[in-house]
Amino acid sequence: MANQNDKKQRTTVSIYGQQYTIVGQEDPAHVKEVVRYVDEQMREMKRKNPYLDTTRLAVLTAVNAVSEYKKLEKQARSNESHSKEN
Amino acid sequence: MANQNDKKQRTTVSIYGQQYTIVGQEDPAHVKEVVRYVDEQMREMKRKNPYLDTTRLAVLTAVNAVSEYKKLEKQARSNESHSKEN
Repeated sequence: MANQNDKKQRTTVSIYGQQYTIVGQEDPAHVKEVVRYVDEQMREMKRKNPYLDTTRLAVLTAVNAVSEYKKLEKQARSNESHSKEN
Repeated sequence: MANQNDKKQRTTVSIYGQQYTIVGQEDPAHVKEVVRYVDEQMREMKRKNPYLDTTRLAVLTAVNAVSEYKKLEKQARSNESHSKEN
């Protein structure tokens, strides 16, 4: 089995005007899609809440993303248990 | 149909030492679960990368959460199309 560290990729991206180097095993196309989404969400939230500073924008973007993740996870589990019943 | 705004709830939470008021239609138990997860992720990331400032921690936590969401979403769609084939 190959050492998983061998597969780590570094992708440099810009989010809300700051540079980040994302390190991981993800496909760079996936990373770019994710980064575009986070950047758009932060800009959209700033438009709606101009008084929020960058840290608060980022924290609230994280909260929204985790909230959507947990809802989708519960839905996926529920679908799985339904399909097992059939 | 009830006005959806009627159902909006305000939950005050603490994330990484700052207070936030989360407004939405989510169950407060869901909000608390999400907030606990974001707070833990930020603390864990700080432990691994002590040089990161709070904004960067929050942005990278958002990136991770969106990445997991998009992977789960693709998996759920793929499972759905497989179950339709059967």
